[in-house]
Formats: sequence, C-alpha cells, structure tokens
Amino acid sequence: MNYALRLMYEGTRYAGWQRQQNAATVQGELEQALAVITRSPLSVTGISRTDAGVHANDYIANFHIDTPLDMYRLCRGLNALLPKDIRVISAEPCREDFSARFDAISKTYLYQIDTSLYGDVFYRNFAWHVPHQLNTEAMQKAAGHFIGSHDFSAFMSQGGTAKTFVREIYESRLEVRDHMLSYYVTGNGFLYNMVRIITGTLVAVGKGKIQPDEIPAIIASCDRTRAGMTAPPQGLTLYKANCNDYSITAERA
Amino acid sequence: MNYALRLMYEGTRYAGWQRQQNAATVQGELEQALAVITRSPLSVTGISRTDAGVHANDYIANFHIDTPLDMYRLCRGLNALLPKDIRVISAEPCREDFSARFDAISKTYLYQIDTSLYGDVFYRNFAWHVPHQLNTEAMQKAAGHFIGSHDFSAFMSQGGTAKTFVREIYESRLEVRDHMLSYYVTGNGFLYNMVRIITGTLVAVGKGKIQPDEIPAIIASCDRTRAGMTAPPQGLTLYKANCNDYSITAERA
Repeated sequence: MNYALRLMYEGTRYAGWQRQQNAATVQGELEQALAVITRSPLSVTGISRTDAGVHANDYIANFHIDTPLDMYRLCRGLNALLPKDIRVISAEPCREDFSARFDAISKTYLYQIDTSLYGDVFYRNFAWHVPHQLNTEAMQKAAGHFIGSHDFSAFMSQGGTAKTFVREIYESRLEVRDHMLSYYVTGNGFLYNMVRIITGTLVAVGKGKIQPDEIPAIIASCDRTRAGMTAPPQGLTLYKANCNDYSITAERA
Repeated sequence: MNYALRLMYEGTRYAGWQRQQNAATVQGELEQALAVITRSPLSVTGISRTDAGVHANDYIANFHIDTPLDMYRLCRGLNALLPKDIRVISAEPCREDFSARFDAISKTYLYQIDTSLYGDVFYRNFAWHVPHQLNTEAMQKAAGHFIGSHDFSAFMSQGGTAKTFVREIYESRLEVRDHMLSYYVTGNGFLYNMVRIITGTLVAVGKGKIQPDEIPAIIASCDRTRAGMTAPPQGLTLYKANCNDYSITAERA
C-alpha cells in the first residue's frame, strides 16, 4: 500500500530534506517517526531535495508499507513524535504507482528579501537581509523575463543530477510590502540552486549592476558567471507543491 | 542628555522586558550593550513591561547620559553587540523631560491565533495554537464591544501596578486569513494581561461558550471569573507604540 503525506517544516535546524548519516534532516526525522509507528523501517520519497536552511510550506511525500494504516492515527501519531518544526498536515492512501518525486507537476517557491537597515527580527531565519535601497521596479521588470521555456544552465550550480536544462517558468513576480520583498516563482521544475541564483540576479538588478533587459541575453548565454550570486538558503521556502492526482481512484488501468 | 531608541525584538528567549538578576531580559541585554558603548552603566526606560515570550514590533525606550553620542555609531554599535533577536531600528536625541513610560499615548497590540489542526511551523513562537473551528463572525462582533472607555477590572490579572482600571480602547478588530486569526487592539493603556484575557475571551466566544452580546455585561461586572482564560504569551506582539512628540524641538518651555 502507498500513502501520501503533506508536510510543512522550518528548515533552520536541518541539514536539508535528504537523509544523512550524521546530521538531522527532515527525511531522517520523518522516517524515524514512521518506524516507531509502523514498527518497520521504511523509506520516504519526497517531491524535492531542499537544501540546509530551506523551508517548506507545502511538501508532498509518499511511502509504501504492507499493512493498512489508519490515517487519523497516523497523522496524530506522527505529529506527537515529530519535532515542532516539522508538521504533518494530512495523510491519505494513494494509488500504488504514485511517486512524489516522479509525479511532480509544478512547484511554487517563495524567496523573501528583507531590505531594512537593521534586519527584521521576525524574518531573520526566513529572509535574506539586503540592507540596500533596491530598485524594485527594475526587479519586477527583470522577474518577468524568466517566464517561458528556457535552457537555465546559466542559473544552475554544479552538483545537481539534472540531465536536461530546459525548464518552463509559469509565474515570476515580485511583491513589495514595506521593507519586505517576496519573490514568487512557479515552474515545472528547477535546476540545482536555480531559484537562489535567479534571486541573486534580481538583487543585482535592484542594485543597478545588471539591467532588466539584459536578462534574456544572460539566459541565452548559458554562462553561470553572467548571472548573479547564489542567494543564501534561509530566504527560500517551497511554497506550493503540485503533483498528478494521487487519489486511489486515479489508479492507472 | 536624553536619547530615544526604537527597537524590535522576538521575546521567545527572554524572561520579558524588565531587568532580572538571573535571567536574560531585553532591558538587560540593551543596558549591557549600552554600557560597553558608553563605558558607563546606565538605566533604560521602556514603554511597556512585556512578559516572557511576548514580542515587540515597535518599542520605544529612552536613556540619559552626560556625554553626547553619535546616533549613527550608536545604532551600528548596539546592533553589532546585541543578539540578533533584538534590533535597534533608530536612535535620536530627544527632549530632556521625555520618558518612554510616562509619555506613552497609545499602543497597538497584535495577538495571533493559529486555528490549523496541525500547528503552523512558521507561527509556533508567534501564535496561540487553537486547533478548533472558531466562529470568527461571532468573535468579530464580540471584539467590537471592547471599544470605548470602560473599567476593565474583569480583564486584569493580579500582580499589576495600576491604580485606576478605566482604559480607553480605540480599535478592536479581528482579521481572518486562512487558518490565521489576527486580533488588533489599540488603546491609551492596558491593565496587566488585559490583551491576553480579552483574547482568551474572544476564543471562548469563537467556541460558543460566551455569546458576543454578553461582553458588555462581563465588562460591567468587573468580575475576572466571568471573562475567558488568559491566552498564552507567545501569541502577543506590541505592534505599534505612540508617544508624545519627543523631538528636541518639542522641549517644553
């Protein structure tokens, strides 16, 4: 049997999603709690390998087990065992061939930038502190240039596992509220550090180091050195995750 | 000379504002940092004695010292010495007779309630987790009844220093966004635990234990046992502080 979980977590204390031998990770905590409840060691598949310090507002994971589980007790049991910075929002049986990894359709990331001089205490684990007057109009204009299907090699760090570099971006926009900037980007997939490099590039635009209209040429160059720096991890949140229908009734014939 | 500071802090790690012998407090941290910078021990006056776990988005404090200080260096120096959960937003010379305590005109508090079943990880230090379907329309109606001048003895814990119990409330409203409720209340002053007891009462209304139209009678009763429970501290934030004009040019004749 196959079960799907929706989670949220604050990544501050974790070395990312993926299980590691000698560090606390979200996958590790979740598998440990599941092992206590199900009395069998099992492996959880996640929709994304978020990095150390990165958060998730909406994360999808799934796991297989031979015995049927009561969903209400599973949710309550996991939330009783998990640390408070990881929460299970819901659990449900899903079709046998569902994989949170391979059935992902799109993800929305949020990257928050704090432009206050002093550094907002309530955002110190959730935003990149950039104490500068940024040109947000130029940043908004630049953000729009990422929409569409592009080879995003210029916005990728070494170390990823991707074999193709074309991704489609559906939404790329900056919201401004007082000193907090919120960048929302939705796409069918993202290369390693892609959102953080796009954000670093937008901040370079905000500082006047890159012009908004240079973005298409930077994308076309496939040259990492022409894009901006990689923004730090704590500003990044996996905001919304979308998978193919995983309900039992959606089982393929 | 007299100087005014505007601060913000996350109260999670502190035993409140007020200096204590054996516990970390915001006043204690601030006075310690000021002593390093000014090389003289001095005492800071704050606009409010926030309790352990309570936060401030906008806090006003002042201190006297004999030697003139450079405001830019003071701000930078304090923020370099203070822990990251306390920030100085601004510093300025103020009129000699200004006191953040006695010149307070009004304060706005924000109390956040998380009604999600699971407990939102991003609000665990900033909200009261009440995993119930609350009747928010009834709560909004009840909130309106607190506006005006009233003897608020029914909404006060023992242990305060107030000598009179009449306070005027200018604003009292509930904002609802998904599972998060934000209660904003502005008044000329607040009794000990007053906002937390009002919030506890609003939650009792949301659960149907108290009817909105009972609020005027509960206020009139001056009977603490008729109001709701004291909501926990971490949901409370001093959101906005207003003092009499403290600029140098406002010096009284």
